[in-house]
Amino acid sequence: MQIAILLYEGFTALDAIGPYESLSHIPGTSTVFVAERPGPVGNDNGHLRVRVEAALDDVPRPDVLLVPGSGRYAEQQTNPAVLDWLRSADRTSAWTASVCTGSLILAAAGLLTGRRATTHWYGLAELGDLGALPTDARYVFDGKYVTAAGVSAGIDMGLALSGRIAGATHAQTVQLLMQYEPRPPYAAGDPATAPAGIVAAARRTLAAVIG
Amino acid sequence: MQIAILLYEGFTALDAIGPYESLSHIPGTSTVFVAERPGPVGNDNGHLRVRVEAALDDVPRPDVLLVPGSGRYAEQQTNPAVLDWLRSADRTSAWTASVCTGSLILAAAGLLTGRRATTHWYGLAELGDLGALPTDARYVFDGKYVTAAGVSAGIDMGLALSGRIAGATHAQTVQLLMQYEPRPPYAAGDPATAPAGIVAAARRTLAAVIG
Repeated sequence: MQIAILLYEGFTALDAIGPYESLSHIPGTSTVFVAERPGPVGNDNGHLRVRVEAALDDVPRPDVLLVPGSGRYAEQQTNPAVLDWLRSADRTSAWTASVCTGSLILAAAGLLTGRRATTHWYGLAELGDLGALPTDARYVFDGKYVTAAGVSAGIDMGLALSGRIAGATHAQTVQLLMQYEPRPPYAAGDPATAPAGIVAAARRTLAAVIG
Repeated sequence: MQIAILLYEGFTALDAIGPYESLSHIPGTSTVFVAERPGPVGNDNGHLRVRVEAALDDVPRPDVLLVPGSGRYAEQQTNPAVLDWLRSADRTSAWTASVCTGSLILAAAGLLTGRRATTHWYGLAELGDLGALPTDARYVFDGKYVTAAGVSAGIDMGLALSGRIAGATHAQTVQLLMQYEPRPPYAAGDPATAPAGIVAAARRTLAAVIG
């Protein structure tokens, strides 16, 4: 079983690495990071450069297809090479998955039309504009499509998807290996419950990046 | 303010990226990944290769020093180049931090002697053997030293440390940007509460890697 994680210039590192850390533990799988062009691919603030060795054409039929998000997701929504590859790889994938604004790329490829899906809280309206049925949940399964909310939600999604693929005993063991018993230091992770001033500050930050 | 994240062959990706994702948002900071030798550095299972551009000598005085863990931490506990750099960088750091078995490397460098610290649950006894005061907590502050439990605990630690450095309003905003409202799909992240069979399976996996 092959797991392909799409990287592109400006990807958010935790979007990719959160689910990677659990999915890569599934027995009998190999994981490959794939990009439009092999070579170094930089994350959103340019600190991290991943040396990607596989081009899109090198990975035509992954079993699991995962698209991380980015503040720069719009560049991929209009990138024919990426959109064509997503549509083609999705034809034979067992699972097509995303984290954060990665679902806005999948939706732009037409893969989420009429499906329940989620994304970063800031992007839920756009997800609906793109034809999906926006769902405010940590992660959403609709058939073989599984989408996670913003950034850190990919960790929860990755473990849940691991459970679907390899069973709950395996996924629980990986959760314990990762010591995933989260204790967020603040109660600020959800716009519905975070302090109003924090929500306003986050919206300003995102508006400056995304519009 | 400079944040230095040490990478070495076999590092666990989420150990590094979890806290990176919050710490890199601190205003006025630059983050640098640093390794003994510049060039590609592979993670524990070799899927991810990070192109590191800074050698240890290029980053002599980081303000924040962060050491991720690995199943292969023992190689670094006896690596004089890394140990010397940690001791030297620690002399002027404002914060010296670790995730998972990264604290076992800090302890091997003599930096945690007599200090309260934590690590992956599987490594707490070794942390005591190395002279620290093992503390079973999600993350532990002792003066400028902050250590996190296994793998995913670096996310909580990174946000808590962001709060110490840049204030709670900033850290809460970053938590909301990351949508960090975790919903683990299973109750298996802590050996004290995970099902006994899961704990036994995780111990077998770790014994095969670490001993």
